This record gives sequence, structure tokens and C-alpha cells, in this order.
Amino acid sequence: MPLRLDRERFVATMEEQARIGATEAGGLHRLALSDEDKEVRDWFTERMEDAGLAVRVDEFGNMFGRREGTNPDANPVLVGSHLDSQPYGGIYDGQLGVIAALEFVRSLNDAGVETTHPIEIVNWTNEEGSRFQPAMQGSGVWAGAQDIETEYAKTDEDGVSFVSELERIGYRGDDPAEPREEYEAYLELHIEQGPYLEENGKEVGVVTGIVGFTWGGLTFHGEADHSGPTPMHYRSDALVAAADVITAVRRIPGTLGERTVGTVGYAKVHPNSINIIPDEVTITWGFRDPDDEIIQEAYERVLAEAEHAADREGVDWEHEERMRAPSVTFADTCVDAVQTAADDLGLDSMRIFSGAGHDATHLHSVCDTGMVFAVSENGKSHNESEYTSWDDCYAAASTLAEAAVNLAGRGDEPEEAAR
Amino acid sequence: MPLRLDRERFVATMEEQARIGATEAGGLHRLALSDEDKEVRDWFTERMEDAGLAVRVDEFGNMFGRREGTNPDANPVLVGSHLDSQPYGGIYDGQLGVIAALEFVRSLNDAGVETTHPIEIVNWTNEEGSRFQPAMQGSGVWAGAQDIETEYAKTDEDGVSFVSELERIGYRGDDPAEPREEYEAYLELHIEQGPYLEENGKEVGVVTGIVGFTWGGLTFHGEADHSGPTPMHYRSDALVAAADVITAVRRIPGTLGERTVGTVGYAKVHPNSINIIPDEVTITWGFRDPDDEIIQEAYERVLAEAEHAADREGVDWEHEERMRAPSVTFADTCVDAVQTAADDLGLDSMRIFSGAGHDATHLHSVCDTGMVFAVSENGKSHNESEYTSWDDCYAAASTLAEAAVNLAGRGDEPEEAAR
Repeated sequence: MPLRLDRERFVATMEEQARIGATEAGGLHRLALSDEDKEVRDWFTERMEDAGLAVRVDEFGNMFGRREGTNPDANPVLVGSHLDSQPYGGIYDGQLGVIAALEFVRSLNDAGVETTHPIEIVNWTNEEGSRFQPAMQGSGVWAGAQDIETEYAKTDEDGVSFVSELERIGYRGDDPAEPREEYEAYLELHIEQGPYLEENGKEVGVVTGIVGFTWGGLTFHGEADHSGPTPMHYRSDALVAAADVITAVRRIPGTLGERTVGTVGYAKVHPNSINIIPDEVTITWGFRDPDDEIIQEAYERVLAEAEHAADREGVDWEHEERMRAPSVTFADTCVDAVQTAADDLGLDSMRIFSGAGHDATHLHSVCDTGMVFAVSENGKSHNESEYTSWDDCYAAASTLAEAAVNLAGRGDEPEEAAR
Repeated sequence: MPLRLDRERFVATMEEQARIGATEAGGLHRLALSDEDKEVRDWFTERMEDAGLAVRVDEFGNMFGRREGTNPDANPVLVGSHLDSQPYGGIYDGQLGVIAALEFVRSLNDAGVETTHPIEIVNWTNEEGSRFQPAMQGSGVWAGAQDIETEYAKTDEDGVSFVSELERIGYRGDDPAEPREEYEAYLELHIEQGPYLEENGKEVGVVTGIVGFTWGGLTFHGEADHSGPTPMHYRSDALVAAADVITAVRRIPGTLGERTVGTVGYAKVHPNSINIIPDEVTITWGFRDPDDEIIQEAYERVLAEAEHAADREGVDWEHEERMRAPSVTFADTCVDAVQTAADDLGLDSMRIFSGAGHDATHLHSVCDTGMVFAVSENGKSHNESEYTSWDDCYAAASTLAEAAVNLAGRGDEPEEAAR
């Protein structure tokens, strides 16, 4: 018999967390290590303790709650996501994954189910990367992809350091920010943030991997001049060169792959005056695709476009790739566990590649990893109109719980009763 | 015999003013109504008084210094420009025009020349329009193009009002901000800010008029979304639409007129994050041409391009024209006076249309108006590398003085001696 989550409690808990840092438009403003982040962490600590979990916080602020298994030698199954938000994000994003993990443990308690493997639930620090870069910072440090001292020293826009904020909110814990032992598996529930599940009329997504990406910045250096008396052929306009690249980034994906996306999300113009030809413009690029070769091709194309644009306009340019993540293919054990769970629950599912990076990206290097996707209405996310119906939240949370308990093993129940 | 300016004193006075608000890179940071503006105004008041001028300040901060003529019924000849600067402007711009006006009066004193008409020299408030918009604010109010109460209420980026700053620096004078009497003529010396004089190997420019322009803003409203999982065909990217218009503004002038220029100097992107599809982007446009019909055509084209760009990207858009100035053709009396002065001084001159707006734009509606242009090296201005050689400054200042004294009439000198 599948585990049964208490739907009413689950929804109430989702609503509770959504009140912390709530925006007027029904979204969340809960930046990493902000007062709101502290508040939700305090709240989550209490909820974990109420559920009988042994809570620990590591030196990077990652929060764990542990429920022991029946086999003292078995490796834990880790389940979770993140509670921080974009500046004006939605209330589902990664929050749903953390609350679902909590509800999973509560449902084990309700049903009196002991698992063979220990269960740990986790809230990763700063997944969003809005206030401190990069994104997925807590899981990155924990998995060894980032150096903790480097990340401690990162500063926000106001020049405030990560570590000072971590200490200020009281979440620089004692535990080393690294796996204390081997892990059996990591499962993460997240909203899809894309339209594919809804478009295909599905109830839940069985995630098979995560796209790779390249992120970078381009700066063009032209010449500032009065916009009136300077003839067109005298100009070296940094913004015109940047505009060419913005257009190219819109076009490049259509020449590469079915799932390729490319975005310029950021532009900064100097001196940014109606009456002065811009002399310095910085823009970013971002390309994603399931195929690493396509990522490389997109990277080469955007640089070629930048070079052509700079040549045309007679401006200098420079670039830096800020991040390159190879695509990830999840372990069969986890993908199968999620698929079996969805099937057992009678949910209409589809296999899907994640278009966004998640903490699971880093966990993939630590242990077998899988993900469950909840339906995103209109594929919207990272804004306040992000929406997933409670039906879809519940379907995904139930799938997560069922997959996790199967990976952890129903220790004390006779096999027949458990099914 | 032409008036002879004291070159050494003239250069020293230019250098003196350039020390007030000097930047490390040799430019000026002297925003309207700033502490630096107050300092240069105080300094200029003393210099005017030293030259025996009757100083008055009007209620909008415009500063006048008057030297009486021999005929009490004659209308004054007004000569001047502005002492304020761009955030990081050069030391010549309009400052040269004010110092040349001062030096003109000093040279009349030196030579003991009385003029038939009174002479007034003027420093107009906030020509640059960097801190408070619009540009040419003081002359605009004085000439009746702008309403004084509206302009008093304008605020800078920090929300500080124009009038409070005017009072703070002590330059809200008693005189009404309007012509007290009829004016015989207005002459203004300014650097060209374009490359034509240098390109043609000329020593001074005889300005025949000022281009007209249209300035405006466009805002595109798309949909913010996560840049990873959102397929390209789901996107309504406000920045892509804006980039199309930036490219179009670069292209439009080449399809219109020989002197047409078009610029996007400003862009603001929201939320401006590497990882979020931009949902709101504002850009400005600016087009200039000597022909008002071309201005209108450019205006219509940029809106048509914006509409096409918005349609392609599926975003909403809105626009506002913030300013439209018809082109100005200067009075023959003034143009001839400047031409004759340049010829009498043996200077190699050319007739030129101004590509930038100047206080002379507004004065044109008050009285006969003309301008003298000094050579701008490489046509650079509105940045710290703006440069005009002292030879070229002196040539232009001498032309201004000679044209002004001829318009004012050498009252007490016998005609023969004066020539």
C-alpha cells in the first residue's frame, strides 16, 4: 500500500511557509540569509523537531533532519530542496520539495513505518543565487564543487559578505559542509518551471536528467560622445554591438537543438543618458541544452557573434565564461524508483529532462540522484504568478514519498503488508 | 581695428574655472545647483564685479552682468552660455562661451570702448540637463518655453527638488525669469562637439542654425520567466524587442538624411538577472536633423519598428515623446556679424549647422540670435577627453567679441578708428 500523505496538513504547511516573506502579489521575497530566510529556517527547525527528527546545521547553513533506520550500517536516503526564493519568486519553486520531504517523514510517523535506511531531509542554503552567486551554492559546497572559503567571502550588492550574514542569522553550524557518510540516494521534488507536463496533460514528471549550460558575460567598450553632433560614421556605440548579440542569442537556439534555449537576462549601460552615446555595455549570456556538444557550439557562436558585432561597430570587447555545467543523466535506480512510484499511485506521468539546474545537479556527484517534477501552470516560475494546483503538488509529493520509502526500504513491515 | 583679447588672461581664466569641480581625468563634474555649481557661480560673480558689471540673478538662477551703452534707448546685446557640466564632462563645452563673454567685456574695458547698445553677459542655469531635466532649462524658462513652477518642482534622482537646491545654493534671485526689455541680439560661443570644423581644416565655425530633434522613451512589457526551462517559443522577452529597436535606430539615419543622427543612450532592464527572461525594458530614442520633416519621419519610423518588434516578440509596448524641438535657422544679421568678424580677423571659417541643442535654441524666439563654434578635437564632447586647443579657443572668442561689438555699435569711437 503506498504511503498516504495527509493532504490537509500538507497544504496547510505549504501555506504556512508561504507567509514568511510573502509579497503583496502572493509571491515570496525570501533571499538567502535575509531576515526572512532566518525566520523560515527557525520555523522549519521547529517543524523538523516536531516530527521527531534530529536536526543539524552544517558550517554553510545547510539544514538536515535525520530519522534513523533499522539497519545501523545502511546509508541514508536524502530528500529535500531549498526554502530560499528569488527577489520576487513564487511560493512553490523549491519550497514544495522541502515541505514534501517533511510531509514524507510525518507520513512515515503516522503510518508507523520504519525504514531500513535512515532518512534525512534537507534544506540547502542559497539555491537561487539571487543575492549571492552562484546558484546552488549550499549543495555545491557540500558536494565539493565549490570551495567553502571562496564562497564565504562572496558579497551581495551592498558589499555584505556571505559568512557575516550566515553568522548574523545564526546558521553557521558546527557540522562540516560535506557528506558525513555514504548516501544511498538523493531525491528532490521541484516544480517543472517549464510547460511540458501541462502541455502533455500529465500529472507528474519523472526527471531523467538536467540540461547543461554555459553562463557568461560580455563587455563592449566604445566611445562616449554627444548624441547630437557626432555623425553616425564617427560612432563606436557599445549598446549597438550589445543589441546585435541580444538578437543573436534569440536566434542561435533555433539553429541548434529542439531543447536549446538562450537568454540575455542582464544589461548594464554606461553612462546611460538619453543624450550620450554609450561607451560601456555589459550583457550576460546563458545557453542550456541536454547535449554538452550543443552547449559548446552555442558558446562558440555567441563569441563569434560578439566579435562580428564589435568589428561592425568598431568597439573593443571582452568576455568571461562564468559557469559551465555539463548535462547530468540521473541514475537508473532513482529514475526507476520515481517511475514505479508514479505508476503505483496511478498517476499519468512522463519522462522529462530538466531545463533548469537544481541542487540535484551537485548531488549527482555524491550519490545516485533522481527528481520528481510537479506541473507548472503555463510553465511560469521565478515570478509571483508561479502556480501549481494543490492537486498537482499533492501528486508530486506522494510520488516523492513513495519513491523515497521504496529506496529506503520498509524495514519493519512485512513485504506483503507494505505493498 | 578688431578688439584684441588678452590671450594670457583669457587662458588663465579658463583654467581657473576648470579647477572648480575638476575631475582627476582633467574634466569637470559640476552638475547644475550642486556645491560645485555654487562655487563657480560665486567665483563668476566676483569676476563680473571686477569687470565693472552690474550683476543680477533672476528667480531661476540665471546670472546676468550688464555694461551700459551710450544710447539709453538702445536694446542690449546679450552674450553668454553656461557654466554647468555633464557628470563627467569636459572643461570647454559651454564654459568657454561664458569665459569668452567675460573676456569680451574686459577687452572693451581695456580698450576704453563704449558701445551704443548695452552689453549683457549671461550664465544660463542647467543647460546640461543631467541632474534635472530638460536640458537648456534656464534659458527655456527665461524665453517662456517652459513654465517656471513646473520646472521648480522637477526633482533629481534622489528626489531633491530644483527649487530647494536653487535656494540652498543661494541663487534664487529677485529678478523675474523673463526678458526685462527687448534685446538687440544674442550671441553664443560653444565648442562644436562634432568633427566637421577639424575635418575641413577650419579655425572657426559660423553657425547658421540648430538641428531639430525628437526625444522619447519606449517601454516593452514581456513576461518574466526562468531562463532555463522556458522553451524559446514560449517567451515574450522585452529585451529582445528592445534590441531590435536599438538596431533599427542605428540604421534609420542612413535611410533619411546626410546629417540625420539617431541614438539609444539609455536602457533599463527588469529584473536584470542572468537567469530570468526580462519582463520590462525601457529604452530612449533621440533623432536629430536640420529638416523638421525628417525628424517627423524618424519619429514615425522608430514607432513602426517598435510595433514590429513588439509583435514579433509578443510583448506589449508604450511610448512617450519627451521632447520635440523644431530646427532653428539663425537671423541673417547675426550670421553675417559672425562671418564678418571671422573674415576681419583673417580666420579660415565655414558655415555649419549645429548638431546639438544650445541655449541659443530658446533665445531664437526672443531676439535675433547667432552662434560661433570653436573646433572640437575629434569631435569629442560630453566626456573628459573633450579638447579644444587654446589657439582655437582664442580664435572663436575673438570672433565672438568682434561680432558682438559690431552688433552693439562702437558708440564713442569714430567709425574709422574703430575699424
